Amino acid sequence: MLREILENVKRTSPLVHNITNYVTVNDCANILIACGGSPIMADDIDEVEDITRICGGLNINIGTLNQRTIPAMLAAGKRANQLSHPIVLDPVGAGASALRTKTAMELIEHIEFTVIRGNASEIKTLALGQGTTRGVDADLSDSITKDSLEQAISFAKDFSRKTGSIIAITGAIDLVAYNEKAYCIYNGHPMMRSITGTGCQLSALIAAFITANPDKLLEATVAAICAMGFCGEKAYKRLKGEDGNASYRNYIIDAIYNLDGDELERGARYEMY
Amino acid sequence: MLREILENVKRTSPLVHNITNYVTVNDCANILIACGGSPIMADDIDEVEDITRICGGLNINIGTLNQRTIPAMLAAGKRANQLSHPIVLDPVGAGASALRTKTAMELIEHIEFTVIRGNASEIKTLALGQGTTRGVDADLSDSITKDSLEQAISFAKDFSRKTGSIIAITGAIDLVAYNEKAYCIYNGHPMMRSITGTGCQLSALIAAFITANPDKLLEATVAAICAMGFCGEKAYKRLKGEDGNASYRNYIIDAIYNLDGDELERGARYEMY
Amino acid sequence: MLREILENVKRTSPLVHNITNYVTVNDCANILIACGGSPIMADDIDEVEDITRICGGLNINIGTLNQRTIPAMLAAGKRANQLSHPIVLDPVGAGASALRTKTAMELIEHIEFTVIRGNASEIKTLALGQGTTRGVDADLSDSITKDSLEQAISFAKDFSRKTGSIIAITGAIDLVAYNEKAYCIYNGHPMMRSITGTGCQLSALIAAFITANPDKLLEATVAAICAMGFCGEKAYKRLKGEDGNASYRNYIIDAIYNLDGDELERGARYEMY
Repeated sequence: MLREILENVKRTSPLVHNITNYVTVNDCANILIACGGSPIMADDIDEVEDITRICGGLNINIGTLNQRTIPAMLAAGKRANQLSHPIVLDPVGAGASALRTKTAMELIEHIEFTVIRGNASEIKTLALGQGTTRGVDADLSDSITKDSLEQAISFAKDFSRKTGSIIAITGAIDLVAYNEKAYCIYNGHPMMRSITGTGCQLSALIAAFITANPDKLLEATVAAICAMGFCGEKAYKRLKGEDGNASYRNYIIDAIYNLDGDELERGARYEMY
Repeated sequence: MLREILENVKRTSPLVHNITNYVTVNDCANILIACGGSPIMADDIDEVEDITRICGGLNINIGTLNQRTIPAMLAAGKRANQLSHPIVLDPVGAGASALRTKTAMELIEHIEFTVIRGNASEIKTLALGQGTTRGVDADLSDSITKDSLEQAISFAKDFSRKTGSIIAITGAIDLVAYNEKAYCIYNGHPMMRSITGTGCQLSALIAAFITANPDKLLEATVAAICAMGFCGEKAYKRLKGEDGNASYRNYIIDAIYNLDGDELERGARYEMY
Repeated sequence: MLREILENVKRTSPLVHNITNYVTVNDCANILIACGGSPIMADDIDEVEDITRICGGLNINIGTLNQRTIPAMLAAGKRANQLSHPIVLDPVGAGASALRTKTAMELIEHIEFTVIRGNASEIKTLALGQGTTRGVDADLSDSITKDSLEQAISFAKDFSRKTGSIIAITGAIDLVAYNEKAYCIYNGHPMMRSITGTGCQLSALIAAFITANPDKLLEATVAAICAMGFCGEKAYKRLKGEDGNASYRNYIIDAIYNLDGDELERGARYEMY
């Protein structure tokens, strides 16, 4: 299944509109190209609807949000909904400031997101309307472990039913839920936390994967998360000598660039719940 | 000829003011240093005239343009014109939104650009006042091939006469025209499309090259395009094993850093028309 | 001493709030993670006080400042002062435009900075209230040499007494002064100038180091500068074949990632004055 999903991305080269933060934007663009997609970044209220119209999907990431870009996120999201384009929300740092929490809640209220992807603290914040995120990283107390897995799955399914969105909670174990279905994904490597923006890059990947696979939105989300995690593992194995997190960053994007459907099919480690 | 042009860049280390997008800005800064120039990025209306004054050249790139930066682009451009500084326009995504098309047209109306560099769709949009760009990449129907070359040269010369600017249309074959003169450049590699911002980086390079060679503006533009394409070829040959587009990005900038005049002279492949 | 300072950073993983430019922001985030810290970037007036509250330290960098971010810098700085958080000011390009000089002066007037770090031209501009910076690089006439060292130390001590801040002037020789104490640091490599943002990255590092070492602010500043310079030396030795400034950029961050306390203790070259 994953093979075909990745091949659809490479075959159709989905154009993805990104309204995203200025910290990791370059990596998001390069990883979108690496997977076979095509990125365009635009965040001005006077052009986001035009840009969304010519794209196939939309990725909204609230890192470094500001008074200028928040209305643009809302306008682009509403337009994408009208056009039935798939949309990803990455609520970076929800819970870390009132503005981020409020903006994320407002986006969810006015836009139907296909996928909402964040770490456990961010998603918990959205579900509860308040939170205690440690900056842009998840609180340790929120992270999903084998012991808390069942509870987390139940929480994610509930939040999916409430929002109508696919919920992706990523961390040491990744969790994807939609209504009564859920997947756990075991790919990835702890060193991925040592790079800024692996989460942002993953959200961009998900946007490309779901845009290219409109009939398999849940499976495409799973495929993107497996791809990112598997490439994190491959890139880790490639590290040698004096390599550190800067080289690792490049190696992950390189691995996505070289990933093909067969390799993803073999490397993906996930279970359905 | 190209040897001397590159050596002038290295010898004079031109300070280039960039008003550019936040996607590829870091690569633009690093490639400017790599070629021997010195970058400064500044986009606030209250400082762009000061910054332009202390610089030798200006590079305006409309990717991620917004209501705050558009007036700054106009102010900086007018000031640079008063100071007779060379100016490059990179109309990223012209044709992709009404705002980008309108802004690019407005910039051309109020500022005399030394060089306008874009892909075929972007330049066609400017010439016609409307367009059908596929995001930030050229429409396939617009790309220059051997068959359409003569027509494209004629189009570029016409647009050059109309604007008074050197017109650089880059793609599989690159075309540079000024009045009755035109050059075709055959350097480059298709994988350069797999990195975000090779176009943006090229525009920054052109700005440095023309600033350091005020008496050979057309030839300096050709030299910058040859340099970028040749380094794209060199970087491609350097790829090995698990390298992908992230490594390729680094290798291109590295190649510009190591490029010397003799190598450029030998590696450049261009014809005059 | 330096060993313990670095170990404190790794042990406590200080969360650093950065209001910084969009040119080098990704490198600042990755080098903060590399040293053991944790970055968060946020610049909107409606969230900077919230973000500063959950962080341990603040790093204000005025590169690409604008009308939207200047009030956010002031608000975040005042809040950080109320909370007694350490704060770094990087006055990028002070002297290059009236706006930068004025903003830097205003920040110093309203905020008590723990450390002010810049090149010789930037710091001279702040001390005199005006300057002649060559873009974002130091004027040659301002750089510290063996001959001008004593005068520079005296100048830095004076400016420290005037501001109450630790003054760090970085260049070929780095100088750190606080009241009657001063250190000269001899680590570093000239090729560090060939990367955009080594200064910005250093300021981010200093913010992490002082946040993790509140009782040794002066020594932590020295340690961060030694770390950056020593890693610049290590990364230079790692260069081979076709490597250039893009690879060098990655190697420096990699070296920070792999640096441990013993290595820093052995590699640091500094003298107290």
